[in-house]
Amino acid sequence: MPLVRIDLHRGTSDEYRTTLGDVVYTALTTVANVPAGDRFIVVTEHDPVNLQIDPHYFVERTDQALIIQITFNQGRTVEVKKALYRAIAEGLHERLGIRTEDVTITLIDVPKENWSFGLGDMQYAD
Amino acid sequence: MPLVRIDLHRGTSDEYRTTLGDVVYTALTTVANVPAGDRFIVVTEHDPVNLQIDPHYFVERTDQALIIQITFNQGRTVEVKKALYRAIAEGLHERLGIRTEDVTITLIDVPKENWSFGLGDMQYAD
Amino acid sequence: MPLVRIDLHRGTSDEYRTTLGDVVYTALTTVANVPAGDRFIVVTEHDPVNLQIDPHYFVERTDQALIIQITFNQGRTVEVKKALYRAIAEGLHERLGIRTEDVTITLIDVPKENWSFGLGDMQYAD
Repeated sequence: MPLVRIDLHRGTSDEYRTTLGDVVYTALTTVANVPAGDRFIVVTEHDPVNLQIDPHYFVERTDQALIIQITFNQGRTVEVKKALYRAIAEGLHERLGIRTEDVTITLIDVPKENWSFGLGDMQYAD
Repeated sequence: MPLVRIDLHRGTSDEYRTTLGDVVYTALTTVANVPAGDRFIVVTEHDPVNLQIDPHYFVERTDQALIIQITFNQGRTVEVKKALYRAIAEGLHERLGIRTEDVTITLIDVPKENWSFGLGDMQYAD
Repeated sequence: MPLVRIDLHRGTSDEYRTTLGDVVYTALTTVANVPAGDRFIVVTEHDPVNLQIDPHYFVERTDQALIIQITFNQGRTVEVKKALYRAIAEGLHERLGIRTEDVTITLIDVPKENWSFGLGDMQYAD
């Protein structure tokens, strides 16, 4: 159910971007009650001029900064969202050495009828 | 009013991607009460490593799987959304031979004041 | 806090796309109560076939038409949103000569707990 969009600078390895997805998926399934197997991640690489991220807002960022946008079902508490941010940032630091300052995350909550996982069905409503 | 984002694997023809948009647009206008002419579609092609779609969640998917995200005005019923999923999946199968299992769709509902269609105006509020 | 996605045709200069971001950022901070420094903008360039924008819906558009999607905190009034559309369209016309008809804008409102600006923290909730 989550649709994850990861936007980052060009120049990382395929393995790096696979691990990026792995970390976000693992965080979602372990702390945010996302079902196992529910992985829909779109990674887009950008030239520096096209990724305009402020280097100072709240924290100091480098040119390795990336943005993760997650669309998922509404109903998650503030506490769950806090735990999700923490799990993603710490996971990216542990697995890829990404500075936690360089991880910006934003969420969009939608109702459960807003998904079709194939066959033209509305699986969550059935 | 709908903004449609289609993310798919690299390697399809221009005609294929035009038809992709045609099918989604036709489904929106015929079953989801979208006005004629209201077509705003962004297609992005990705390398396989950047399109991380689970091959087994609910259905069996191939490497031709794609994701369609539609932002449109709130107020559509569950029944309309169901009909929309069906129309998109069946249309893509009929027109492009895409397996309906390979079509994942997700919706974001927004209020009608959230659109400007040019001139800096808020057309839907006037 | 706003995450801005700008989708446009391929073939503009780096300076053009930087100014695009500058104009949207300036509009957000001057008329929509966005904090100074809060700039998170993702620009994506597309081939014509992948940017399927109707040339006639409400206004007459050219192949220079672009789409701006802004995700930001809920609570902004209709009047503020109107002023934002106006400021972006006029700013793009003044700074880059873009026809205001070619500027389509769409908004997504989210609650303030839906952002992490680094460190795995939920800055707006603290």
